[in-house]
Amino acid sequence: MREYIDQESLEDLATGATVLGAGGGGDPYLGKLMARQAIELHGPVRLMQVAELPGEGLVLPVAMMGAPTVLVEKIPNGSELESVVRAIETRLGQQAVALMSAEAGGINSTIPIVAATELGLSLLDADGMGRAFPEIPMCSMSVRGISATPMALADEKGNLMLLETVDNAWTERLSRAATVEMGGSSIIALYPMTARQATSAVISGTMSRAIEIGERRRTARQQTLDPLGELLEATSGKILFRGKVVDVLRRTVGGFARGTARIEGLGEDTGATLQIEFQNENLVALRDGKPVATVPDLISVLDADTRAPVTTEGISYGQRVEVVGMPCAPIWREPGALEVAGPGYFGYPFEYFPLEEVEA
Amino acid sequence: MREYIDQESLEDLATGATVLGAGGGGDPYLGKLMARQAIELHGPVRLMQVAELPGEGLVLPVAMMGAPTVLVEKIPNGSELESVVRAIETRLGQQAVALMSAEAGGINSTIPIVAATELGLSLLDADGMGRAFPEIPMCSMSVRGISATPMALADEKGNLMLLETVDNAWTERLSRAATVEMGGSSIIALYPMTARQATSAVISGTMSRAIEIGERRRTARQQTLDPLGELLEATSGKILFRGKVVDVLRRTVGGFARGTARIEGLGEDTGATLQIEFQNENLVALRDGKPVATVPDLISVLDADTRAPVTTEGISYGQRVEVVGMPCAPIWREPGALEVAGPGYFGYPFEYFPLEEVEA
Repeated sequence: MREYIDQESLEDLATGATVLGAGGGGDPYLGKLMARQAIELHGPVRLMQVAELPGEGLVLPVAMMGAPTVLVEKIPNGSELESVVRAIETRLGQQAVALMSAEAGGINSTIPIVAATELGLSLLDADGMGRAFPEIPMCSMSVRGISATPMALADEKGNLMLLETVDNAWTERLSRAATVEMGGSSIIALYPMTARQATSAVISGTMSRAIEIGERRRTARQQTLDPLGELLEATSGKILFRGKVVDVLRRTVGGFARGTARIEGLGEDTGATLQIEFQNENLVALRDGKPVATVPDLISVLDADTRAPVTTEGISYGQRVEVVGMPCAPIWREPGALEVAGPGYFGYPFEYFPLEEVEA
Repeated sequence: MREYIDQESLEDLATGATVLGAGGGGDPYLGKLMARQAIELHGPVRLMQVAELPGEGLVLPVAMMGAPTVLVEKIPNGSELESVVRAIETRLGQQAVALMSAEAGGINSTIPIVAATELGLSLLDADGMGRAFPEIPMCSMSVRGISATPMALADEKGNLMLLETVDNAWTERLSRAATVEMGGSSIIALYPMTARQATSAVISGTMSRAIEIGERRRTARQQTLDPLGELLEATSGKILFRGKVVDVLRRTVGGFARGTARIEGLGEDTGATLQIEFQNENLVALRDGKPVATVPDLISVLDADTRAPVTTEGISYGQRVEVVGMPCAPIWREPGALEVAGPGYFGYPFEYFPLEEVEA
């Protein structure tokens, strides 16, 4: 079991988390730089397993909220992370024992590392999605009935907000409006929970899993193994499509990066077209108009040359890509979970189907 | 000196505050009903003079935020007032000694009465504007450099927000966005201050003044004196125009009730037109296109028959009205104050001039 995140595992984590991010979670490069600097200053982060958590200890997820397109241009000043963690600790009258990633995904896997090393706290080997999702209620903690509030938001100017809402849909509405007003992104701490609650509510092992995905890709390249094969094996994934990006439509609306990418097939897929629709994260993949993968299953786009994951804000005209589908964490296939993270929630007229059930 | 607000003085206060509200501050009838019920349940409210305040005691203004057009349809459930007061007390680790009106104006003069009687607190004989204004920084406390935060917002659903901002302009932005998201109105507590700060930062005696204005109008009617003359004497006001409302343009935008009322002259003013522009409150009065009164001076519209003040959401086609101008509280004529509450702030291309300097 991995006990620390150091500079090397940070590299692997950033790659692996971006694969799990399904196109979202923000720019991995920026997040990695921030975490690299933080580890250089404060040392490696202790990775705590869910089973090691002390019963009543406070576990606190931290993240960046907003459109990834904005995050790239609006770098946090560093004090926001401490400010949101302290705001929740003060409100609850209890100090955190471990921080946590709310989601797997570029910047939102590394932001908690920055916070943990700066504040001298452990990082839980877990996340709340097993991937990245665009909205706050789309968390395993929410599926398990845990409130997202008290939640704290801070911006780089020094504004701080503490929210207590009647349900997690209201948390999303009010914090999204605040994030838009703060300029399109904010630093947040939310879903505070006891270790006991965390045990049944978080997706355990996500950090180790992301590091493993990144590590296998890296060592495959060094050992001239097939990095794509390694990635598919590590994620139980499958190739959905190979082709060239011919069209990208992107707009930042209501604090989200929304859009569509159209990919024309190459090789085996010549003559076919894959359309990917995204809201921060890739939501559905339609092959010649027919859905072949949908949320909550993961759809990740890889650069065909480097096999590096491409985020929704990085995808661009002319890129040669491989599109990979990966099954979501089991909690998302439980009854009720699809209501907050299935295709119907995002307005699509078709039902969720497990990715494995579609023939390649 | 008046020591309590009971049912009788509440009636006078509601009328007088609506005159001072300059068209804003929300529906006086609804506010009066709420306060009447609260006084019936909990007894009269003790009115505390600024000079009586204990040095380090916490003074806390409470108000309703949002478009008055919305307030009429979205009645608070009662627990929001306690919730915002407790949120600030908890944040500061200090109990309030007195609540206060943030502004003079229909509902925002009576909301603090409801809160004070429910919570068993005194009400300070003061406000932060000497009138009503549409935005948070337009407060005498802000002119004196006091922060509007920590500020608490609550809605009737049970959502609660605590804000700490870098300046009062950011308080306005973030709380306005939240208020819009909460459905267009919210209950707020803000500008917490020590009694010592309050002494130099509030507009003293506003409650008594509003009660006096209402009382003189009421007794004038009983004694067949001229209620308009009494009102002008009590407020050092003057008549700007008499006429009939021929056009009202109103829209609720960004959490504000904005619009224009056009009045065609009658009697001495026959042949002339007065245009009043408002943002919750009446901002400027233009006679045949020429400004005759502007913020921060007060522009109030009275029903010509009853001499009852008419709010911007109550003004309607065909009403016969008298438009009255009244000088603002002296603090608004200090250097710097006009920057946050003068015509330039609201986008008008002319400078403020004291109402008294224009010939009738």
